[in-house]
Amino acid sequence: MIQFQCDYNEGCHPEILAALQRTNMEQTVGYGEDAYCAAARDAVRRAIGREDADVHFLVGGTQTNATVIASILRPYQGVLSADRGHINVHETGAIEHTGHKVLALPSCEGKITASQVEDAIKGHFAEDGPEHAVQPGMVYLSFPTELGTLYSKKELQDISAVCRRYGQPLFIDGARMGYGLCSPDCDVTLEDIARLADVFYIGGTKVGALFGEAVVIVSDALKKDFRYYIKQHGAMLAKGRLLGLQFMTLFADGLYFRISQHAIDMAMRIKNGLKETGIELYSESGTNQQFVVIEKDMYDRLSRDFLLSLWSETDDGRYVVRICTSWATTEENVNKLLNAFKKN
Amino acid sequence: MIQFQCDYNEGCHPEILAALQRTNMEQTVGYGEDAYCAAARDAVRRAIGREDADVHFLVGGTQTNATVIASILRPYQGVLSADRGHINVHETGAIEHTGHKVLALPSCEGKITASQVEDAIKGHFAEDGPEHAVQPGMVYLSFPTELGTLYSKKELQDISAVCRRYGQPLFIDGARMGYGLCSPDCDVTLEDIARLADVFYIGGTKVGALFGEAVVIVSDALKKDFRYYIKQHGAMLAKGRLLGLQFMTLFADGLYFRISQHAIDMAMRIKNGLKETGIELYSESGTNQQFVVIEKDMYDRLSRDFLLSLWSETDDGRYVVRICTSWATTEENVNKLLNAFKKN
Amino acid sequence: MIQFQCDYNEGCHPEILAALQRTNMEQTVGYGEDAYCAAARDAVRRAIGREDADVHFLVGGTQTNATVIASILRPYQGVLSADRGHINVHETGAIEHTGHKVLALPSCEGKITASQVEDAIKGHFAEDGPEHAVQPGMVYLSFPTELGTLYSKKELQDISAVCRRYGQPLFIDGARMGYGLCSPDCDVTLEDIARLADVFYIGGTKVGALFGEAVVIVSDALKKDFRYYIKQHGAMLAKGRLLGLQFMTLFADGLYFRISQHAIDMAMRIKNGLKETGIELYSESGTNQQFVVIEKDMYDRLSRDFLLSLWSETDDGRYVVRICTSWATTEENVNKLLNAFKKN
Amino acid sequence: MIQFQCDYNEGCHPEILAALQRTNMEQTVGYGEDAYCAAARDAVRRAIGREDADVHFLVGGTQTNATVIASILRPYQGVLSADRGHINVHETGAIEHTGHKVLALPSCEGKITASQVEDAIKGHFAEDGPEHAVQPGMVYLSFPTELGTLYSKKELQDISAVCRRYGQPLFIDGARMGYGLCSPDCDVTLEDIARLADVFYIGGTKVGALFGEAVVIVSDALKKDFRYYIKQHGAMLAKGRLLGLQFMTLFADGLYFRISQHAIDMAMRIKNGLKETGIELYSESGTNQQFVVIEKDMYDRLSRDFLLSLWSETDDGRYVVRICTSWATTEENVNKLLNAFKKN
Repeated sequence: MIQFQCDYNEGCHPEILAALQRTNMEQTVGYGEDAYCAAARDAVRRAIGREDADVHFLVGGTQTNATVIASILRPYQGVLSADRGHINVHETGAIEHTGHKVLALPSCEGKITASQVEDAIKGHFAEDGPEHAVQPGMVYLSFPTELGTLYSKKELQDISAVCRRYGQPLFIDGARMGYGLCSPDCDVTLEDIARLADVFYIGGTKVGALFGEAVVIVSDALKKDFRYYIKQHGAMLAKGRLLGLQFMTLFADGLYFRISQHAIDMAMRIKNGLKETGIELYSESGTNQQFVVIEKDMYDRLSRDFLLSLWSETDDGRYVVRICTSWATTEENVNKLLNAFKKN
Repeated sequence: MIQFQCDYNEGCHPEILAALQRTNMEQTVGYGEDAYCAAARDAVRRAIGREDADVHFLVGGTQTNATVIASILRPYQGVLSADRGHINVHETGAIEHTGHKVLALPSCEGKITASQVEDAIKGHFAEDGPEHAVQPGMVYLSFPTELGTLYSKKELQDISAVCRRYGQPLFIDGARMGYGLCSPDCDVTLEDIARLADVFYIGGTKVGALFGEAVVIVSDALKKDFRYYIKQHGAMLAKGRLLGLQFMTLFADGLYFRISQHAIDMAMRIKNGLKETGIELYSESGTNQQFVVIEKDMYDRLSRDFLLSLWSETDDGRYVVRICTSWATTEENVNKLLNAFKKN
Repeated sequence: MIQFQCDYNEGCHPEILAALQRTNMEQTVGYGEDAYCAAARDAVRRAIGREDADVHFLVGGTQTNATVIASILRPYQGVLSADRGHINVHETGAIEHTGHKVLALPSCEGKITASQVEDAIKGHFAEDGPEHAVQPGMVYLSFPTELGTLYSKKELQDISAVCRRYGQPLFIDGARMGYGLCSPDCDVTLEDIARLADVFYIGGTKVGALFGEAVVIVSDALKKDFRYYIKQHGAMLAKGRLLGLQFMTLFADGLYFRISQHAIDMAMRIKNGLKETGIELYSESGTNQQFVVIEKDMYDRLSRDFLLSLWSETDDGRYVVRICTSWATTEENVNKLLNAFKKN
Repeated sequence: MIQFQCDYNEGCHPEILAALQRTNMEQTVGYGEDAYCAAARDAVRRAIGREDADVHFLVGGTQTNATVIASILRPYQGVLSADRGHINVHETGAIEHTGHKVLALPSCEGKITASQVEDAIKGHFAEDGPEHAVQPGMVYLSFPTELGTLYSKKELQDISAVCRRYGQPLFIDGARMGYGLCSPDCDVTLEDIARLADVFYIGGTKVGALFGEAVVIVSDALKKDFRYYIKQHGAMLAKGRLLGLQFMTLFADGLYFRISQHAIDMAMRIKNGLKETGIELYSESGTNQQFVVIEKDMYDRLSRDFLLSLWSETDDGRYVVRICTSWATTEENVNKLLNAFKKN
């Protein structure tokens, strides 16, 4: 079976494994206070162009979202998010488990707008007796979104401006950050993200690492005592150097972007190939997640050789199917997939 | 100012105050273990026709909802509710504060349907990897709803049947239970509620008491250690007898229903009067909450003499206004209100 | 049975019931925003000599403790408290339920010292890797304590000074505040409390009210959005005026202190009477809670006519028994109790 | 600097790295549902002699403790633990963060006794009004303890018997399980642990793995929906196979025990060497953690070449210092350490 169902099928980029091998028997102190973590933090700071940012390494995405959000909100506050946002639908209530409501806004192609955010905030405070409702306390969005779509620089600037006007920290979930930044549709840089967000994370798990997410805290107001939150959330890896080594390898000389670009190249080949074959695209995604609409029969036939992700069903009974590429996707497998679509 | 904006403007029914006066210097043990609470529990059990039910007295509605829901759900479970349900919009995230997501279903006139509930439950368990989402763990509904509407016996039976089929406890919020049961539109009895729900509460705060809600646990599986939850939620009144005395007074000889009926009679006079005057009703409510659609100007003029509740704005800029009656509403004030509408 | 087991056996002071009666059919707005609450807030502010304090009325003690503490701490912080403090032993984990550890310090006669507090704070921050432990975030103490003992002004000043040096808010639980302030052993005034604490509450439930606690927030940093916390904790009474009327009655002209003084007078009669009879006192309490050490047999004989509170057992098998007076204790009952002790 | 301060200084056992290398570009499904995890679960089941146990792989210790405990307790319940237990002092309140009190019992050399546990449970239920206190809901202990000590089989049997008598699940934290089982002082086997505990975990992070803990749920009552808890706690690794590969490598042919034995051999060499040199041992530990009492000066001199862990200070101003060995400790470094002690 050839797997295109997600972007975490393989282990990690070979350079990372080589780094682990090379350093394996070295002794370091724990909990992220070793030299590799320090070097990785520096590399990330250079990549985002912010010497003053705090950088922390956590293990996984749900954990990172819960930890960051819990560090920002007061108990009576909630987080504004797209209704299809990862925190609202795919984290088993990890945010609510820390006591906070996800204030879901209707999304369009996985995205929310600055005016939605502003309306929600203004609406809350305009109420007679706002203390009877959850107070919006921050804004969460994903770049790229769960549907592979991207916010434009203008859209992010507008959301960021609203957030700052109303004192709401903006948190950007970058589980697939690399695949967003390398998209042909993207007009945003990592520096832009660091300028427009108050805190964000750069995903490693889906972009070449064995695991790991780099949280970048840009806003001074959010930096205090963050390590307590990491520990309390069970997110402080004893052998923190493992995270340091991975992010050092990814960011020391741009490996992160090169392998992200590869995933995008593979995704665009698939997208164009499918278009040529006449397969209907569910959305115009420019990132590593492509969504197609196919008959159930075709899905069943493809499923003999390929693992794809069944996303949802259309009203007329067809299937929306997700196809993911990653840093590890081979041209050979892409060709096989396109041929299979042609034959079926 | 004459107040129609809510149903908790006055103190309490005079008989309750008389009972407090009569017993004031008696000594009783605390925390709901006195003879008045025992008598009140018996009176409630008789009223619902269930000798085996557990009855507990709490102070207020939000507290009651949070305590009951926390006593039922496991940490990874959420509560299915109408999106306009009180727990979803007017409790400052009290449910999320205990760690649980409110799984909001789109509502029609404040109500949800058995098939919505079933779809949500089946949909969750049909997912590949259901553990990535919050598991539905119980169903919450209000009788009457926040919009004054009522579930029919058939609707409740259907929801109850779905709940039992899937092992989901059904919790009915009866903050205004009396005003529902005495509505001309109601085909449900308190016995029906006790048969169809697993746990529910009978509201006192809005129906003649100074404060207090009577939680009735019908399902044996939900009875264990409930007093721990009451205490942990800060809901165990030291002088529990105050609650016992109130519910004993309300339920010993049907006072609860007589004063509920009065509120409904007043509401129907208002409803009919407004109809005659040509005022547009926002919904066909048969309970003590009436909603009308009026011009902003009329609202402003009425607001010189009356306190009404501004509910929302229509798309064409008019106001939806709530008018509440209660056990304490006087015919005199109802007449004044109707006259004011006529003149304006 | 004559009850001396606690200080919440009776209803409320007759003046409070009269106020409820007098205002019963008046219409007011809800949730503590009525004129009676405003008047009560003013009366409390005058009593403590602080025009700038925020005053909120909640229903009960456990609820108040949980709400105040949750409003102060960040998730990784805990509250320093005597190990015998109410929050550590008698609130069913209400504090932990909001996510916070009670950092218990060994107590002497229910009290903690400034140096214990300082050591705990310094000890935490001196640790290598303090983020692996709960950070002290505030200090809680009771005045009087659960054992009826009192902090002297000097002791409170010292604790307050340590708290301010280390930026730790000091919260004083005054469930029995009146009985402390009127004790012959007390050298502290309500103004002192308001000067030394950052937030405290004045208990009504045990001192003449039907129920109710007045939270006084002195420190500006703790005032923001407190009403959201009240609502989220299910502590916002719909008919808030009930609390306003009670505290207005208690504080308008010093009733609170007069009835507290009565309880202390009764307690001192008991204390002196028992001493004369040769009964062993467990502690030298100057407040309304007296603790005696008696043989099990005597306890059983007394228990035929009196409800006392069995507190603990001594190593030699005797009983420590608590005797409480209150605003409602009669001389007649005190005489009967002393006679019973004499005869037994 | 040669590091003896903890047992997670190096990467992982070379066989694990080889397994990661060998499988790196294979494609597997995520979240622990791949074939390597299945094989690892089987290997663990064989090692404990229980075909029916559920085995789950999590990332770290604090995370595992919080997840397991949250899966067992009801909101009003707490966990009985030694006061020096990891969950009580070194997890930044992760347990309280999930809403539960740690019911700390005074410990002797890090251990608690069956009678302490029984007294705590009986004491709670014997109270008048037990619902005012946190109900004991389970028992937590560490094997070996944080002080390197071990429970004997008899001690574990007694605690287990009490737990079963009172319906309290027993959870054994085995972060250093291998180092306990291979101690010369140990009369317990992994099969015994699996028989006496209801749930336990076998630590990988400190015993040869890069990271990872294997939770073994023996009691059927605790198995339901555990994957929801893992996900909610941010503990479900996307590339779950990494955990599978590690535990498969450790348990397929006894590697776990061989490398644990090495650590114990090194620890015993240190222990005996120090005894010969006349260094005072703080406790008689038979596991990989050795505690010595030395003068501050000696500590400072040793600290030029060695990283040791300063544990506490004695009353007479000397230092208690922890020395750890692990699977990775070399004879060469042990010799250097012993020589340094001799010279100093």
